[in-house]
Amino acid sequence: MRRIKVYDTTLRDGAQSEGISFSCRDKLDLVRKLDAFGMDFIEGGWPGSSPRDDSFFSEAASLELENSSLVAFGSTCRYGTEPENDANLAALSSCCAEWCCIFGKTWDLHIREALKISPEDNLSIIENSIRFLRDSGKRVMFDAEHFFDGYRSDPDLTAEAVRAAEKAGSEWIVLCDTNGGSLPGYVYESVKEISGKVSVPLGIHCHNDSDLAVACTLSAAEAGCGMVQGTVNGIGERCGNTNLCTLLPNLSIKMGMDLGKIDIRAVTELSKYAGEIANTVPDPNMPYVGSRAFAHKGGIHVSAIARNPSTYEHVPPESVGNARRILVSDMAGRASIAEKLKQLGMDSGGDKDIADTIKNLESEGYTFEGADASFELLVRRMRKEIEPVFGIEGFRVYTDSSGENGTVSEASIKVTDLRGNMEHTAADGNGPVNALDNALRKGLKCFFPELASVRLTDYKVRVLNEGEGTGTGVRVLIRSTDGKEDWTTVGVSVNIIEASVNALKDSLEYALIRQYNYGRRSDEQSDSDTDGKGQGWHHRSGMHLLLR
Amino acid sequence: MRRIKVYDTTLRDGAQSEGISFSCRDKLDLVRKLDAFGMDFIEGGWPGSSPRDDSFFSEAASLELENSSLVAFGSTCRYGTEPENDANLAALSSCCAEWCCIFGKTWDLHIREALKISPEDNLSIIENSIRFLRDSGKRVMFDAEHFFDGYRSDPDLTAEAVRAAEKAGSEWIVLCDTNGGSLPGYVYESVKEISGKVSVPLGIHCHNDSDLAVACTLSAAEAGCGMVQGTVNGIGERCGNTNLCTLLPNLSIKMGMDLGKIDIRAVTELSKYAGEIANTVPDPNMPYVGSRAFAHKGGIHVSAIARNPSTYEHVPPESVGNARRILVSDMAGRASIAEKLKQLGMDSGGDKDIADTIKNLESEGYTFEGADASFELLVRRMRKEIEPVFGIEGFRVYTDSSGENGTVSEASIKVTDLRGNMEHTAADGNGPVNALDNALRKGLKCFFPELASVRLTDYKVRVLNEGEGTGTGVRVLIRSTDGKEDWTTVGVSVNIIEASVNALKDSLEYALIRQYNYGRRSDEQSDSDTDGKGQGWHHRSGMHLLLR
Repeated sequence: MRRIKVYDTTLRDGAQSEGISFSCRDKLDLVRKLDAFGMDFIEGGWPGSSPRDDSFFSEAASLELENSSLVAFGSTCRYGTEPENDANLAALSSCCAEWCCIFGKTWDLHIREALKISPEDNLSIIENSIRFLRDSGKRVMFDAEHFFDGYRSDPDLTAEAVRAAEKAGSEWIVLCDTNGGSLPGYVYESVKEISGKVSVPLGIHCHNDSDLAVACTLSAAEAGCGMVQGTVNGIGERCGNTNLCTLLPNLSIKMGMDLGKIDIRAVTELSKYAGEIANTVPDPNMPYVGSRAFAHKGGIHVSAIARNPSTYEHVPPESVGNARRILVSDMAGRASIAEKLKQLGMDSGGDKDIADTIKNLESEGYTFEGADASFELLVRRMRKEIEPVFGIEGFRVYTDSSGENGTVSEASIKVTDLRGNMEHTAADGNGPVNALDNALRKGLKCFFPELASVRLTDYKVRVLNEGEGTGTGVRVLIRSTDGKEDWTTVGVSVNIIEASVNALKDSLEYALIRQYNYGRRSDEQSDSDTDGKGQGWHHRSGMHLLLR
Repeated sequence: MRRIKVYDTTLRDGAQSEGISFSCRDKLDLVRKLDAFGMDFIEGGWPGSSPRDDSFFSEAASLELENSSLVAFGSTCRYGTEPENDANLAALSSCCAEWCCIFGKTWDLHIREALKISPEDNLSIIENSIRFLRDSGKRVMFDAEHFFDGYRSDPDLTAEAVRAAEKAGSEWIVLCDTNGGSLPGYVYESVKEISGKVSVPLGIHCHNDSDLAVACTLSAAEAGCGMVQGTVNGIGERCGNTNLCTLLPNLSIKMGMDLGKIDIRAVTELSKYAGEIANTVPDPNMPYVGSRAFAHKGGIHVSAIARNPSTYEHVPPESVGNARRILVSDMAGRASIAEKLKQLGMDSGGDKDIADTIKNLESEGYTFEGADASFELLVRRMRKEIEPVFGIEGFRVYTDSSGENGTVSEASIKVTDLRGNMEHTAADGNGPVNALDNALRKGLKCFFPELASVRLTDYKVRVLNEGEGTGTGVRVLIRSTDGKEDWTTVGVSVNIIEASVNALKDSLEYALIRQYNYGRRSDEQSDSDTDGKGQGWHHRSGMHLLLR
């Protein structure tokens, strides 16, 4: 099996996608996920290009990556500037990444029309930039921008640029189909040719403007490229980059290549995770990882599949961590639910009931993809392993812009400990949800002082049934932390405030049950349905808690 | 130029797509559109499979198609049934279509495991079915289901099935990659081989399960197939069929093939039209035809494109009837702004000031990438080309869950026409933003009845500086329509309600100024800074507007 390296540029080229904007925190989370998935290289961003990328590289210094090498992206130095005076190269040389990937010109059209310099000056720019980074202790890759356009137009000039990068000490040359216009046959031939002219290993970086990014990348791999580049879900400028979620299964399952530490069964989960972080709706029709990729309707297919799945499936869905869906009599998700329960360290009993409940909730707009805490609460509630810990009797929140203090929000709320104690309180906030969060926690802290350490770290809103504006359903995802652990909960309603309260409620209930062990029923009681008044409540120490 | 025929199966295989359901009327409309586009063959459905397809074929009899031949889809007869007693073949033979395309088995696995018959009986089924349709006056194509899987497993058996179809009088043999699992190289080789074994022309029908449908179809065309099959926008079961909207530009522009009556400049409009009929949101990243296919952000790209578009575009957007879009973003400089102004048909003066203002706003969390309407308002306000049209004196919105009617939201608002008239009104809503939207438009309609046709179509929320939960800034993007045109506006605030009001205000102001010509200053006044009290207000007719 031939080993091929995988280079992820979701955080850099993927972030060029219209409508996608990663926070520094998002980027750090994604790096951890991509490392765990087993990427060989993770391109984190462009140091010096924005304050966000600068803080990313300063925070990334303390990441301890297991499988991946971090790469910083940038460009060769400006014409007429010495490398040591070039701000871009300075930022690259001083960032925490082991590797730098810099792009340079290899297309005569760009050298003449965009840079307006001679080919010789272009070669000096490439060599000097690479030498400078090497001297500052970095390992370097050279991104041959527009390689395929250049090679079509003037193969000698393009080959010389690539050889200059090799001469200066670049350890990889990445051949870029920057405009996404090449056909797979041409990619195959030019990779074959150029690999006869350099001895440094080659990488391939494609864009999907001709709907051929995956095909061109496979062609290049077949022709000898030792590294493939792309993004999770194929996000990227214009029509996107090569989609790693469809490329990697092809390389591994169809072409039998060795992807190192990558277990291809984790690719569906990676796709979903990245979709949540990017706050984009993942394409359900996406090959291999989409929710429809193994969905069957129509009696002929379904009965043939019951006999032998290979009659209508090109690969087994489990091979990519996805699941078969039968659209008429839905057996949806039982395998993934069993898998999920196992993952959370829970028994796998009652999958069928759980699957049915989840199916119903999903049709209302819920998603449990990223909301593990809500999923765990749901299952434990169904199994009567836990009991309610607090109640919300009612709330009011108003937002006012008619006074002199700009727009202010205030919430009032009544919370109970379900043992006869009620707290009626109120709080201000930056907005209605913040005010409610403040009021809810203020009230609950009277009963559960542990909640003082819990705070929200993220709040995401998605409008369901797009096309109907603000009158439609809303899904809210909330991430919380107690400083040691993170968890995510989900709420759905036609009203954004109610959806937020549902997610907030789950978040605090999860904290109390999971972190502080309230509301868990002891084993002896778990099969009898008591009224919950005091029984089964115990603190982590095993002693009953004295409630106010 | 080699002529290649185009076969559209949007109405049949495309209709297998989860979530898509065409009415008979939809189908008739689409047939007219596909005919006008210049398809060679249009597969209308499967007679006898559903009442809808039956009424389609009875109504289609009166269609007068200019460029296309109508095809009816179906299967070979059931094992053990004589063709003349087969309901499926009877429906095919009596429908209005000139052509019938029937699928049969060519994969030993299916013959043995699904049909459980001998290869010889399978050959008889194929031959008898085709002969029956020929005898009833139909022209016939044979769909070799699972051709590529069959050819891989037992090439002789598969080739024999294909030859049986030829012998019986099928005028085309369509090679199907039914499970979508083949790689382009294998497709090329097997098409080459089979074309040496039959003399009837070959077609190709691919599915996108490996993200390679377009690549495999191009390979087959290169290897000699004379017909390509696919669907508009690639809709279809699982991961969809070959996408004609990306395939056809590749065949025509990149491979120089002759597509008969098809003018490839109409492909973007075809994509949009079919998306409307299917009621799906077309993928903005779709190659060639998506709204982002020629969208550029990032200062380097944009300034190069201003000099020579081929530097960053693989084909001219006009060649497929699409258009270039310049995105204004924090990576963009003055060049993108100048380009954007040109695109909106505005003067390009004062780029520097505009760039500075936008940079400041972006650091507060604004984005003008998708918010063209807010961008235009911003520039026109800076240039004093427009004046405020209305004012919001103040608003209150509250959400209450303490009553008996679930969670309810109500907003009150005071709006003025800036000429001394004030409207104080209130409205309910599904949530606070919906209530505010209702109240704001209710109030403004008193002054501007035109606003009755304006409504929101999308509402997106993004939390800024994540990691601080609900206490952080919020960016709201709102898309609106008046039924003829769409526009997007942006609002930012720490308070989600205020951010929403800002975006709503821009949306309605844009409608009034751009669509209904309120608030535009006449040329004579545009260089003097008047106090705006009534001056410069004119209606589309040029007359002053009588308010209320």
